[in-house]
Amino acid sequence: MSEAVCAAIDWGTTRFRAWLLDAAGEPVAERRSDEGMSALKREQFAGVLEMHLAAMGAGASLPVVICGMAGSRQGWLEAPYVDAPARFDQIFASAVAVPGVRREVRIVPGIAERDPSRPDVMRGEETQLAGIAATEGGGALLVCMPGTHCKWVELAGDTVTGFTTWMTGELYSVLSQHSILRHAVGGAPVRITADGPVFLDWLEDGLTHPADAASRLFRIRASTLLTGMEPAQAAAALSGLLIGSEVGSARALFGTGRKTVLVGSGQLGALYGEALRRAGFNASPVDGDKVVRAGLAEAARRNFGGTAGRNA
Amino acid sequence: MSEAVCAAIDWGTTRFRAWLLDAAGEPVAERRSDEGMSALKREQFAGVLEMHLAAMGAGASLPVVICGMAGSRQGWLEAPYVDAPARFDQIFASAVAVPGVRREVRIVPGIAERDPSRPDVMRGEETQLAGIAATEGGGALLVCMPGTHCKWVELAGDTVTGFTTWMTGELYSVLSQHSILRHAVGGAPVRITADGPVFLDWLEDGLTHPADAASRLFRIRASTLLTGMEPAQAAAALSGLLIGSEVGSARALFGTGRKTVLVGSGQLGALYGEALRRAGFNASPVDGDKVVRAGLAEAARRNFGGTAGRNA
Repeated sequence: MSEAVCAAIDWGTTRFRAWLLDAAGEPVAERRSDEGMSALKREQFAGVLEMHLAAMGAGASLPVVICGMAGSRQGWLEAPYVDAPARFDQIFASAVAVPGVRREVRIVPGIAERDPSRPDVMRGEETQLAGIAATEGGGALLVCMPGTHCKWVELAGDTVTGFTTWMTGELYSVLSQHSILRHAVGGAPVRITADGPVFLDWLEDGLTHPADAASRLFRIRASTLLTGMEPAQAAAALSGLLIGSEVGSARALFGTGRKTVLVGSGQLGALYGEALRRAGFNASPVDGDKVVRAGLAEAARRNFGGTAGRNA
Repeated sequence: MSEAVCAAIDWGTTRFRAWLLDAAGEPVAERRSDEGMSALKREQFAGVLEMHLAAMGAGASLPVVICGMAGSRQGWLEAPYVDAPARFDQIFASAVAVPGVRREVRIVPGIAERDPSRPDVMRGEETQLAGIAATEGGGALLVCMPGTHCKWVELAGDTVTGFTTWMTGELYSVLSQHSILRHAVGGAPVRITADGPVFLDWLEDGLTHPADAASRLFRIRASTLLTGMEPAQAAAALSGLLIGSEVGSARALFGTGRKTVLVGSGQLGALYGEALRRAGFNASPVDGDKVVRAGLAEAARRNFGGTAGRNA
């Protein structure tokens, strides 16, 4: 097994993911847990980190680089946003050192769009984007990053030139849990598949009529009452309508002519892949874990140097 | 005081409103409470009704007509939907008699749109619409009915020809209570005014870009983080964006050329009034209580006759 040169942590709101990376940026150990930012008090972050490092066999002086919501005001230590347009070297040079810990720990900042006509923020995605820029070989890219708050990002070489967030994932969550649609969708988790006819029908509906999403949502409720739509169908309809509306809206903003990358694997990646294809995007999928590791490895090199932090 | 000829009840999901009406349809007594359909078990409806009737001094044989969610499957007794297009005489003739109670009690059914390309339902609004048709003197009307589930209705004389629901009120509620926007909006109730600059800015944004609402929502979160937007401003922004998106979407569907009526008074009516005006609609406001009473009076006349149910 290669020697670890740094620990790389993606510390989000709900999830903690850690790797030890070798000099080539390849993972030599991995840990995942639910100890996300929102589950921790400020004074717990150091202990949780050391516990996972020990479990991976990290040396006492191995340096650590962190991205994600751990760097928010409500997280471990605030890493103030870098303003867009933002270069990756500038972002990584602005990583904040955590004081009073037993090893070097740096937190990568997010990016803020401060144009008052389109204020926006990201935290964590900037590191994935650095990984994408490194592996996709520069040039202009449109990057679709599905999730709770889905980001569409315009990249030019090593610079994030602009980005826009859609609240699609969170809309799915709050509508299916807290609105009248909870009766339609039911409580049980459902596996929605990208080739299901209900998902595809409602996806098309969203793509074609993104301006009418707030009314078409109620058709899911009406379908339950009038035609006995089942919970699994209602979940597929809600997912299709919301993803379709997002992609339809994004298509009108960005067009489909650019080289496009879709971040994500698994079920959600497949749903967005189908949505992008039907909307006319020619998107290449990339694995979210892989690109965040590549970005964190680059952040570690910039902060600790190529050989700094060998696993002593 | 005139003699009551019937009791008229608007029994919704969260609110109970009752009047005793005289032969001219004018209220001679009134009661309001939070004993909505969702707060009651089936066996409680009769007791709640009799308690309020007694408090209003209703005679033992005074007949009662009810509209709203009390007639839903989860309510007191299901009054099956009448299909659109639906005439008011047909709707009122389909009122369902509640068995096993000490007086005549009939529940007005809602309307179902069963066209599979646009399934929709209403319950309670059909009675307000009958009141509007009676007072506005026939002809073609477009009716905007703000609320948790806002309805836009096409009326032709005494017939509901079509309608569409927007989930605007519920979106405001679930987003401000359960999404990340709860941090922006805060917990305290806010009085949003139709001439506030933040409301108007975001209203314009929604009217102009209804397809982008799911992304513009996140700008409220970003504004909190980047420019210190205050909770009262965030609430006004959310309200403006959602109402603007609805009215922008409805304008594209219905056009602004028709004679238009806006149901509602108070704060919400004022916000929608401003939205309709800026969208180019020339809408006349009508009072929701007044038109539901007019509709219930008409339902009582059709069910119990002009002199039936005198307050014996």
